[in-house]
Amino acid sequence: MSDLYIGIDLGGTNIKVGCFDDKMNLLKKDSSPTNADMGPEVVVENIGLLTESLFKDGGYSFKNVKGVGIGTPGPVNLREGIVVAAPNLPAFRNTPIRKMVRQRLEKPVVMENDANAACFGEHVIGAGKGVDDMVFLTLGTGIGGGVISNGQVVHGYADDAAELGHIIIFPDGRLCGCGQRGCVEAYASANSTVARAIEAIRQGGKSSLSKLLDDTGKITCKQIYEAVANGDELAMNITEGTARALGLLCVNILHFSGPRRIVFAGGMIAAGDMLLKRIQYYFDKYIWPMKEESLEICFATLGEDAGIIGNAALARYNLKKGELS
Amino acid sequence: MSDLYIGIDLGGTNIKVGCFDDKMNLLKKDSSPTNADMGPEVVVENIGLLTESLFKDGGYSFKNVKGVGIGTPGPVNLREGIVVAAPNLPAFRNTPIRKMVRQRLEKPVVMENDANAACFGEHVIGAGKGVDDMVFLTLGTGIGGGVISNGQVVHGYADDAAELGHIIIFPDGRLCGCGQRGCVEAYASANSTVARAIEAIRQGGKSSLSKLLDDTGKITCKQIYEAVANGDELAMNITEGTARALGLLCVNILHFSGPRRIVFAGGMIAAGDMLLKRIQYYFDKYIWPMKEESLEICFATLGEDAGIIGNAALARYNLKKGELS
Repeated sequence: MSDLYIGIDLGGTNIKVGCFDDKMNLLKKDSSPTNADMGPEVVVENIGLLTESLFKDGGYSFKNVKGVGIGTPGPVNLREGIVVAAPNLPAFRNTPIRKMVRQRLEKPVVMENDANAACFGEHVIGAGKGVDDMVFLTLGTGIGGGVISNGQVVHGYADDAAELGHIIIFPDGRLCGCGQRGCVEAYASANSTVARAIEAIRQGGKSSLSKLLDDTGKITCKQIYEAVANGDELAMNITEGTARALGLLCVNILHFSGPRRIVFAGGMIAAGDMLLKRIQYYFDKYIWPMKEESLEICFATLGEDAGIIGNAALARYNLKKGELS
Repeated sequence: MSDLYIGIDLGGTNIKVGCFDDKMNLLKKDSSPTNADMGPEVVVENIGLLTESLFKDGGYSFKNVKGVGIGTPGPVNLREGIVVAAPNLPAFRNTPIRKMVRQRLEKPVVMENDANAACFGEHVIGAGKGVDDMVFLTLGTGIGGGVISNGQVVHGYADDAAELGHIIIFPDGRLCGCGQRGCVEAYASANSTVARAIEAIRQGGKSSLSKLLDDTGKITCKQIYEAVANGDELAMNITEGTARALGLLCVNILHFSGPRRIVFAGGMIAAGDMLLKRIQYYFDKYIWPMKEESLEICFATLGEDAGIIGNAALARYNLKKGELS
C-alpha cells in the first residue's frame, strides 16, 4: 500500500479534507461546514471526524498516513503553527492549530496559509507543474497570492509575503479594504469590479446593468462579464480597468521575482479567455520593449481542490526534507 | 593557511579584484580600468594579470584559492555563465565569461549579476548580516536591486528577477530609459532626481540651483541635497518626490517578498539620514494600518566593496553546496 497524505483546507465557510497517495492522486475528499464561531476546539474535532469518516468510507488505512498539511486563512505564524487573527475565523486568536490537529490526528502536521497552499498545489500537479519560479493569484472577493522561487514557497520574515492584492499600482487611488489606497485589489477583485460598475452606473453611465441594479439592488461580477459579451460599453470599460490593473501587476511581478508563469485562479477566471487576453494585452502594453519576455500568463487548472492538494503535497515535501513533525 | 576566495567585480569602467579568507575578511584588493571596448579576451587577460599581481604583492598562495566569483552587468545567463548583452560592456555579446575566467585562472568560478552580488555581500557581512529575507536597492545612475528569500538569491526563470528599478509605480507616468512609463527609476534614481529638478527650474521654479544650471549647464544630485540642507524649496519638493517614490516601492516590496530589511546602497545614500527618514515617512504613510510591520529600512555598510565581497562569498557558498565548478 502506498504512503498516504492528508490535505486539509480550513476556510471560513467550509472545511475540506482530501486523502492522497504518494503521487498526489486524490483518492477521496469530503467537506463540512466550518462553524468557525463555535471555536477552535469544535472545529478541530470536526476536522477529526471528517477525516475519520473519509478513511472509513474509502476503506483506506489511516496507518499509512505519513503526514498532514493544513492551510488556513492568515495572518499566520508558520514557525509556531498558529493562526494569529484571521478575519474569516473570528473565534481564532493566536490559536495553535498545528499542535491541535497533530494531537487530534496523531500524525505529523505542516501548516501553510491558504493562498500559498493552493499555489503549491498548482505548482505540483496543476498549471505550474514543473515550473520552479511561478506566481499565483486568486481573483475572488479579494486578491490573494503565492510566490514560488527556486521551487520554494516564499514566506518572508513575518510569514506575510505574497500579499499581492495589496501591491499599490495607483498611488492615492481607490481606498482598499486594507486601509491602503490604490491597491490592485481595490480595482481588480470581483468585489471591486462590481463596486466600480455600480459607481459608474450611479454616476449616470448607461448600461444594460442599470435595470438589474435598480430591481435587485445589486449586480455580480458574472453579470458584468455577461454584459460585456453582449456588447455593453460600460461593462467593457469596467472590465478593461480590471484587466489593466492585472496587466500592470504582472509587469511588476515579472520585475520582482522573474517567474516563468503567472497563474490566475479564483471565481473570476470563469470570465474565461476574454479576461486572460485582456490581461495579456495590458502586460504587453506596459512591459519594456527591451527583450522578448518568456513569461506565460495562464489560468489555474485545479479549481477548488488546489488547497487540499497543495497541503497534502506540502506534507510530502516537508517529510522528504526531514522537516515534518 | 586558510582557504582563499577571489571576488571579481567587472564593471563598465573598472575591474575590481579582492582576495578573501574563509571568513570573508578582505586580505587585499586592487582595481584597474576595464577597457571594455578592447573586447572580452583583453578584459579577461587584465583580470588574470590583476589577480596575479594581487597575490604576488600580498604574498598569498594562489594554491589556497578554492573558488572565484565574478559579477557582471546584466542581462546575463547564469546557468551558461554568459554575459548576454550588457549596455556597459559594449563589446560583450553572448560572451562565456565564466568559462574564460575559469580557463585563465584555472579555478572553479561562479557568476552572478552585479546587483545580486552586492546584495549577497551585504547579506553575508554587511547591513543584511544574519537576515535571510532581505531586499537590496542601489540608487545610482539607475536603480538596481537584489532579492534574497530563505537565504537564497532570487534569480527568476530568465535570470532577470529583481529589476526593482523598473517596478511601475505611476502608470503612464514619466518615460524611463527602459522604455516603460512610470518606473520608480524614472523618479528616484540620481539621474531622474536631477532631471526632475532641471525640468522644474526650466518651468520657472525659483531655486538657488538656477544660477548653477545657467552657469554650468548642469546640476548634480549632491548639489540638490546641499540645496535642501540650505532650505531651498524647489530642491525639497524634488527630493520629496524621490523619497515618496522609494517609500511606495518599499510598500510594494514588503507585500511581495516580506523582507525583514530593505538595504539602500549606491551614490545617492550620501544624502544621509535626510533621505532615509523621508523614505521611512512615506513608507509609514502608504503602508496599511492593519498591523505593526517588522520591516527595517537602512543603508548599506560595505560601500564599493560589496561587489567583490559578495562574489567571493558566492564562491564559498556554492563550494559548500557542492555546486562550484
